[in-house]
Amino acid sequence: MWVAQGRLFSVLAKVHRETRRRVLVALKSIAAGVRNETGIAAAKTHLAARFGGRFQTGEAIRAQHAHTTTYIPAQLPDAVVFPESAAEVCEIVEVACAHRVPLIPFGTGSSLEGHLNAPHGGISVDMMRMNRVLAVSAEDLDCTVEPGVTREELNTYLRDTGLFFPIDPGANASIGGMASTRASGTNAVRYGTMKENVLAVTAVVAGGREIRTAHRARKSSAGYDLTRLFVGAEGTLGIITSITLRLQGIPEVISGGVCPFPTIADACNAVILTIQSGIPVARIELLDALQMKACNAYSGLSYQETPTLFVEFHGGGQSVELQSRQFAEIASEFGSPGFIWTTNPEERARLWKARHNAYWAQKSLMPGRAILSTDVCVPISRLADCVAATHEDIAAYGLVAPIVGHAGDGNFHVGLLFDDTDAADVARAEAFVERLNARALSMDGTCTGEHGIGQGKMPFLAAELGDALDLMRQIKRSLDPDNIFNPGKIFI
Amino acid sequence: MWVAQGRLFSVLAKVHRETRRRVLVALKSIAAGVRNETGIAAAKTHLAARFGGRFQTGEAIRAQHAHTTTYIPAQLPDAVVFPESAAEVCEIVEVACAHRVPLIPFGTGSSLEGHLNAPHGGISVDMMRMNRVLAVSAEDLDCTVEPGVTREELNTYLRDTGLFFPIDPGANASIGGMASTRASGTNAVRYGTMKENVLAVTAVVAGGREIRTAHRARKSSAGYDLTRLFVGAEGTLGIITSITLRLQGIPEVISGGVCPFPTIADACNAVILTIQSGIPVARIELLDALQMKACNAYSGLSYQETPTLFVEFHGGGQSVELQSRQFAEIASEFGSPGFIWTTNPEERARLWKARHNAYWAQKSLMPGRAILSTDVCVPISRLADCVAATHEDIAAYGLVAPIVGHAGDGNFHVGLLFDDTDAADVARAEAFVERLNARALSMDGTCTGEHGIGQGKMPFLAAELGDALDLMRQIKRSLDPDNIFNPGKIFI
Repeated sequence: MWVAQGRLFSVLAKVHRETRRRVLVALKSIAAGVRNETGIAAAKTHLAARFGGRFQTGEAIRAQHAHTTTYIPAQLPDAVVFPESAAEVCEIVEVACAHRVPLIPFGTGSSLEGHLNAPHGGISVDMMRMNRVLAVSAEDLDCTVEPGVTREELNTYLRDTGLFFPIDPGANASIGGMASTRASGTNAVRYGTMKENVLAVTAVVAGGREIRTAHRARKSSAGYDLTRLFVGAEGTLGIITSITLRLQGIPEVISGGVCPFPTIADACNAVILTIQSGIPVARIELLDALQMKACNAYSGLSYQETPTLFVEFHGGGQSVELQSRQFAEIASEFGSPGFIWTTNPEERARLWKARHNAYWAQKSLMPGRAILSTDVCVPISRLADCVAATHEDIAAYGLVAPIVGHAGDGNFHVGLLFDDTDAADVARAEAFVERLNARALSMDGTCTGEHGIGQGKMPFLAAELGDALDLMRQIKRSLDPDNIFNPGKIFI
Repeated sequence: MWVAQGRLFSVLAKVHRETRRRVLVALKSIAAGVRNETGIAAAKTHLAARFGGRFQTGEAIRAQHAHTTTYIPAQLPDAVVFPESAAEVCEIVEVACAHRVPLIPFGTGSSLEGHLNAPHGGISVDMMRMNRVLAVSAEDLDCTVEPGVTREELNTYLRDTGLFFPIDPGANASIGGMASTRASGTNAVRYGTMKENVLAVTAVVAGGREIRTAHRARKSSAGYDLTRLFVGAEGTLGIITSITLRLQGIPEVISGGVCPFPTIADACNAVILTIQSGIPVARIELLDALQMKACNAYSGLSYQETPTLFVEFHGGGQSVELQSRQFAEIASEFGSPGFIWTTNPEERARLWKARHNAYWAQKSLMPGRAILSTDVCVPISRLADCVAATHEDIAAYGLVAPIVGHAGDGNFHVGLLFDDTDAADVARAEAFVERLNARALSMDGTCTGEHGIGQGKMPFLAAELGDALDLMRQIKRSLDPDNIFNPGKIFI
């Protein structure tokens, strides 16, 4: 215990130092006036003449394109441009390179860590007019889309093919944004994350050339994995102009259900045994007692207010029934009073309603308060310990903060309700988040399972990877020598 | 048809140009004497003093560490060093950087495209004494191993944990080598390739620092995906010193069987429908008629000498029986006279014997001849066309060349029997391989599904990725400015 605490504190010390360093660096760069005013003015003139009404500088539209979904203060871009083709993106990048002006690619604006802020000014490149599905190959279970297609639009488009795109981060995000943040969500435990589901991208890189990272083969050993380099690069290496995705057959049958447990540890142990047994669970979501209480109040339900797993199985009729029964046996081994499940779609939607409304239920706990939604991910064996220690911290800090986790991946979110207009409350939330991240790192985990680094997680990434961060900087400098693409994100 | 042919020929033209360019560059660099004789001599003196008997310069041992498994002529390193720890690897890299001397990491020597050759001389770094399993976490289904552990050693070590490491490229390769070539093999269709199964690596990079690319969380959005950058980098960015791997539960039951088809197209269509139906097949291997004939002759069997699928399902007893029956139904839709399968381990081994002995059966077709084993990978919808066109080419060139494919991935191998001492036969084999690769590229495929680029596939990678190759060069230069790590591989 002491050893673990010692490790936690040594990581925390590192984070504190790094936070201080980062703040100093940031202040210095602001003081030094890193905005390239001449370049920005010249690029604006050039792009306004070229794009006409598709180039906007009004404050409302710029504010809409700065980051607004968390407490991180918004830093507005100088303008927003709306390209309609890869060729236009090439032109925009050429202009930006010529004038050394930042470009910040924009999808639906649902990212959570300040990815879309413009700390050095520059142009937001709104990709949402590039929203065509370019190709679907049902036989190969793949498709190629432009970055502005949202995941719901894609699934609507695919409906008649019998296929679907499984990654579901909650928000109806754009595929380009999901690729750029390496998104995942509820069913990553079965279908993987964007990392596993992007076969190739095209991207416009420094100088304004469009490159293709791979073709449509399911696997390849052909050189460096450039696809995986762009997935999760948060727009810092180029602007993605198309994405080739793996698709899945729509399951013949889906069974879904709800399963309460006496403790977080019991729920986590049931998850571990389910996965170890090779039961191909499609979703296995953990809601803590406070979250269940919020769900009951918000949706007028009467679930037990104890840690609860929401579970889904996909497959043929016989196989999902078999899997559901196997899971029920495991759950009862860990003290669950029972797994209520069904293959009837309406009944399943009713059972899962609490999970689907989790965010709104959180908000209803303290109406008017902001929510800071932060995520960490740990090896699954540490999930129970990590959530339990986080609960202790929530109590010690006097916070209201329900927890929802993608338990099968060891990934969980804390939805911290706080007053974002009160400096003391913001500081308290930040101190809590810092301890949460340090704890995940001390457990061999990561500071983000699916939200990405943006601006908010920078100090924790430095603590997580140490010297390896230098490799990222070297790659960034080699591919984007003028620091055009989304500068000031991931690392400084 | 004309469009497709036009595309094929335009790709071929590109390959030809690139081949010519590559040969010219290679000749120029040899003429310019790119061996750094002074540096090599100094590094040898330094390393001999430091490593004593673990530094060897005898010709036999150097020849053993040059590439010997294909027709590509061997280029011997100047010496071989045998580190026993990451700290020793750091020392070796420091010496190599100080003297600008190439280092070629070596595992079991089973790579197939000249990965281990030393075109500029230098030191082979034999990693096989770093062969400890460092940690196994049964609860997290992961382990961390040194690079010299072979996959069979790892699975022997894991036996009592109920877990196994699924990737099986055929050879008993080292985990370090498998990570470096992004290996896969027969059951990638179910468990993925090394790309999906490496959670993190540590590697010694330029300057002699050891970095860690990630920790043990199942997923992470923490910055650039350095793990996937090292997986498949073929030792050109640093020397891997440990690998953290995902493990799988040993299946409760395995069913395996054999299923002949009238034509390659029928067999491929059965594979497509199986995968589209979401049946989680664990292995689905295609052997062509010539390969079946070779297997019958070599192993004294009496299988039908028509295209045949060897299939395996992993899971619980009920689920594998269900899956096997579902597959049998699909196979009969495509004209198969019957799928013979069993869950009895001895019986299953007997049914699969032909597949396991495929390589030796190939050799027995023309005893004394060399085998050129080459691989390409195409979208699964093009597999039948690609194999059929390859058969036409084999006939047109008058070659003996059985085909074995990981059909579920669209990946197949041609085992070309030829006389590697006859220049005309080598030229004919090379011309055939060039057409094979151009065909795969014209079908949106890749020049290698699992063997990697090494020296042999360089011109095809250039044709496959065009300008994207520049990004690889930029990354290589930024992370290895003195071109220490396995130079002259992947690209020049």
